[in-house]
Amino acid sequence: MSSITIVEVGPRDGFQPIGPFIPTARKLAIIRGCAEAGIRRVEAGAFVGAAAVPQMADAGDILAGLADLPELDAQMLVPNPRHVRRALQAGARHLCYVISVSEAHNRSNVRRSVAESVAEFAELVPELQGVALRMNIATAFDCPFDGPVDDAATLDLVGRLAALRPDAEFCLCDTTGRADPVHVARLHTACAEAFPAVRHWAFHGHDTYGLGLANVHGAFQAGVRVFDAAIAGLGGCPFAPGATGNVATEDVAWMFHRMGIETGIDLGALLPVAVEAAGLPGGTPGGRVREALGRR
Amino acid sequence: MSSITIVEVGPRDGFQPIGPFIPTARKLAIIRGCAEAGIRRVEAGAFVGAAAVPQMADAGDILAGLADLPELDAQMLVPNPRHVRRALQAGARHLCYVISVSEAHNRSNVRRSVAESVAEFAELVPELQGVALRMNIATAFDCPFDGPVDDAATLDLVGRLAALRPDAEFCLCDTTGRADPVHVARLHTACAEAFPAVRHWAFHGHDTYGLGLANVHGAFQAGVRVFDAAIAGLGGCPFAPGATGNVATEDVAWMFHRMGIETGIDLGALLPVAVEAAGLPGGTPGGRVREALGRR
Repeated sequence: MSSITIVEVGPRDGFQPIGPFIPTARKLAIIRGCAEAGIRRVEAGAFVGAAAVPQMADAGDILAGLADLPELDAQMLVPNPRHVRRALQAGARHLCYVISVSEAHNRSNVRRSVAESVAEFAELVPELQGVALRMNIATAFDCPFDGPVDDAATLDLVGRLAALRPDAEFCLCDTTGRADPVHVARLHTACAEAFPAVRHWAFHGHDTYGLGLANVHGAFQAGVRVFDAAIAGLGGCPFAPGATGNVATEDVAWMFHRMGIETGIDLGALLPVAVEAAGLPGGTPGGRVREALGRR
Repeated sequence: MSSITIVEVGPRDGFQPIGPFIPTARKLAIIRGCAEAGIRRVEAGAFVGAAAVPQMADAGDILAGLADLPELDAQMLVPNPRHVRRALQAGARHLCYVISVSEAHNRSNVRRSVAESVAEFAELVPELQGVALRMNIATAFDCPFDGPVDDAATLDLVGRLAALRPDAEFCLCDTTGRADPVHVARLHTACAEAFPAVRHWAFHGHDTYGLGLANVHGAFQAGVRVFDAAIAGLGGCPFAPGATGNVATEDVAWMFHRMGIETGIDLGALLPVAVEAAGLPGGTPGGRVREALGRR
């Protein structure tokens, strides 16, 4: 039986837009619940400006709070060299560095042009020896400001970064949820063909338009075996009614289990954790499986 | 540009489980709204026992109320010969006959064994000359009572019915929403290969576990070009919290438009109809696109 890996990004992408601060202990309890249900990799938080994203201010405590779970691979999101250094100092050994394909989104996200971000990352590379690296290619398909993104632009950015760290895992992110399964499969196929030296690919999808699982399946058909997902489908913005978040971990796991693909996750054990996460004050949960299985 | 056809089944599968009776005029207004947004085919209602499904009691009035829309192909669901005759008498010219693959579901649905349903249909065939026919193969993938359904059982039923009316459109129905895209593609491919005389295939999906669009895409990859969908994702059961319905018409249209596939639907015109349908008292709407586009 073949298998895939789900990276639980709820503690970062899911919690990040939630207004009321989630106590660190409650975050840790959810992460530990995920680990107990079989999740082996988590994006546990982000080292970012605490003023910009107050919900992530406890990243160091989260990392320390997971130190006794050596089997859990905890990656931390970092947007620039300053925060990389903070993360390494706090003991992070797996970083998720993010650069956007679109100028508008990169500027909004990290206040740099794409070229500046790439140059800055190039200077940083010597400091990253021995650190496991995920590269999040944001707006790989579509940009909230500029609309559709050309495949060529995404290939160009991936190529420049792959030349610097070909051993990194490259994750194509459907930031807006407006990609479709044909687009997702096409771009992943093109990337894998263009950069055979890159051995690790991942897909990060949002379910804003209901295409989350269709896109995950599209990426799977193109050979991707690592998928980001957030417990309870968290990730929506509390200030935008109807906004919805990442594909739900429990839905992604359900789909692959139905397809006969191993995820290592015990859905029965994950469901109460998803119900707990769905009840976080200020969160906007998504996904179907939690309720569908809950009422059986 | 290639194209697909969406059959709007909200007025039947979507309205059917809604408790409070929807006034006939309101049903007709929603169907007309769909037609004005470009939908060319609708399952407008069902001729069934009024005691069993009171919401469908006005099927004759619905049919009469659409008589001035000759460009709208209105199919009516019928479960047995008695109701077929009622539908034909009321002027129906496109029937959707339903038989389940699983014994338990067929017995629950039409109180007959599968063999009895097939024999009864065989006797009925001479009366159906000149009537356009859709055959709904219910529980083609999974049964709410018996669980997973063998591909061989579905192929067997389709084969027996195709021998009687090979010109019919055969629709594989994921009654429980527990199919996955691999299963959907595999079974459609197997059917098309086994019964080359059948020229018309369709897929009917539910989004109960969030796989609705992934499954629609799976069927599309297997060559299917006709898809059932319900406006606002209606179809859940008001007595089962969390139950969810058919794939939402607006989500299916959105996905195909993103894929560059023509549906003939003007999403901007369809959205207010979807919002109206989502607000029906007693309904349990689903889908993402309605809210995602509504807040832009």
